[in-house]
Amino acid sequence: MTRQQLIDQIFLKRSYLCVGLDTDIDKIPNHLLKNADPVFEFNKAIIDATKDICVGYKINTAFYEARGLKGWAEMERTVDYIPTTHFKIADAKRGDIGNTSAQYAKAFFESMNFDAITVAPYMGHDSVKPFLEFKNKWTIVLGLTSNPGAADFELQQLIRKADTLEEEVHISKSETSYLYEYVLETVSDWGSPENLMFVVGATQANEFLNIRKLTPDHFYLVPGLGFQGGSLKEISENAMNGDCGLLVNASRAIIYASQKENFAEEAATIAKEYQKEMAGYLPVRRLV
Amino acid sequence: MTRQQLIDQIFLKRSYLCVGLDTDIDKIPNHLLKNADPVFEFNKAIIDATKDICVGYKINTAFYEARGLKGWAEMERTVDYIPTTHFKIADAKRGDIGNTSAQYAKAFFESMNFDAITVAPYMGHDSVKPFLEFKNKWTIVLGLTSNPGAADFELQQLIRKADTLEEEVHISKSETSYLYEYVLETVSDWGSPENLMFVVGATQANEFLNIRKLTPDHFYLVPGLGFQGGSLKEISENAMNGDCGLLVNASRAIIYASQKENFAEEAATIAKEYQKEMAGYLPVRRLV
Repeated sequence: MTRQQLIDQIFLKRSYLCVGLDTDIDKIPNHLLKNADPVFEFNKAIIDATKDICVGYKINTAFYEARGLKGWAEMERTVDYIPTTHFKIADAKRGDIGNTSAQYAKAFFESMNFDAITVAPYMGHDSVKPFLEFKNKWTIVLGLTSNPGAADFELQQLIRKADTLEEEVHISKSETSYLYEYVLETVSDWGSPENLMFVVGATQANEFLNIRKLTPDHFYLVPGLGFQGGSLKEISENAMNGDCGLLVNASRAIIYASQKENFAEEAATIAKEYQKEMAGYLPVRRLV
Repeated sequence: MTRQQLIDQIFLKRSYLCVGLDTDIDKIPNHLLKNADPVFEFNKAIIDATKDICVGYKINTAFYEARGLKGWAEMERTVDYIPTTHFKIADAKRGDIGNTSAQYAKAFFESMNFDAITVAPYMGHDSVKPFLEFKNKWTIVLGLTSNPGAADFELQQLIRKADTLEEEVHISKSETSYLYEYVLETVSDWGSPENLMFVVGATQANEFLNIRKLTPDHFYLVPGLGFQGGSLKEISENAMNGDCGLLVNASRAIIYASQKENFAEEAATIAKEYQKEMAGYLPVRRLV
């Protein structure tokens, strides 16, 4: 999917909602368990009920891998079932040396037909670039994540010009930055806003203005809404750009809205609430 | 596998070699392709030929995921085939928010019977700790990797006491460290040398003395030998401890030693060369 196609979908539906399919067999409604293929049936029902309200689906690969071969098959069938109009994200947090990242890219962009994959930046350029080589596919690199552990490394202060460091030096604050800022700036040079996005957690609202300054044109995948406590209002007011530039994801808050027979309708009701709020933040038409 | 069991295997076999099963169907000998299950047959032959020479196998998950469902099945069968005496590493570079990392741990420690998994540290404590909660299982966190991209973030200078940073401050060199050093020190507190190892690339020999000082008791998984150019001598002289403390991996240099019918014997010949050299570096008995 191209950037323009994604933007068109957002302004058509007046939604930048992404539904997270973190499908856990222990959490889906009991009545589905008598089904031969409960996880896929659950995903199918959620997709059918929410597809007019959202622009993307994020599949958290961990929940499928935990079920082994059966789970991998459920993931493959789910990706195939998502309409081609929707942005399909493999939330896989992959990243390894070049020849290995190339294999991961093959897994998610060729063997399965995902539009995007989330990638961890720790190992640097040759771990990220193989994903960027696929046409009309997207690499979504971790910037500042939504979890408490973001404080451990992502929010540590880095010295910007390490090569000029002497035994004892004067460093003004302008020469330091958070690790995540340095990641955003460095990784930006490896791709373009046409094939590269960043993960920015919804719980990091106080950093959003700064992040938008660093990367004015990129889309952000924003997880952490709902269960993790992020505010849609703060995200939208602080980080939206003229192309929207946001894909806001909710997983548990939507897909586990109800344990009853009508779980999919209930999921759609919650998704619709998010979409309505989003419609209010989006400009009437795309600003260029 | 416990730490003691691993050490016993190392001193019994006089080997700290790990064979990397980065099995790529495009690189295995042609004659195997007429087989119904060529990747598994290749792995089986390599394992049979090398099991007396090495103490572990490292399965690079990317190469299996790239082949989809079939690949995942090949990975499951390969793990099952490796003898229980051998340390089984899922080189998967996973890591996500807590509830998701718990699913990855389930995938590799329960759904499959790996002894260890490699984990990326970027997202911090709640992305690593779920793996550490499994008894007699190991979490191998990326420290300083073997690839060129290690310079992008891992080798950037961090300020150690960011909270005391003023507008303009005096920072002595002792108050800064590389990101990877900070990762080693921070992550060390989350586990113990009984359940936590670090990835340290073989190509980073000049940092090995320093790394051993920071984490004197931990095992390191050392990839990057062979194709990536690391020196077994330097690694062993600079980073071995009284328990050995090293698992040195070679993948391509061993498994693709030959394209002929006797590829497994040729692989064993190369593995044996590494093992012989290792025997020379190991003390006669464990030093305590």
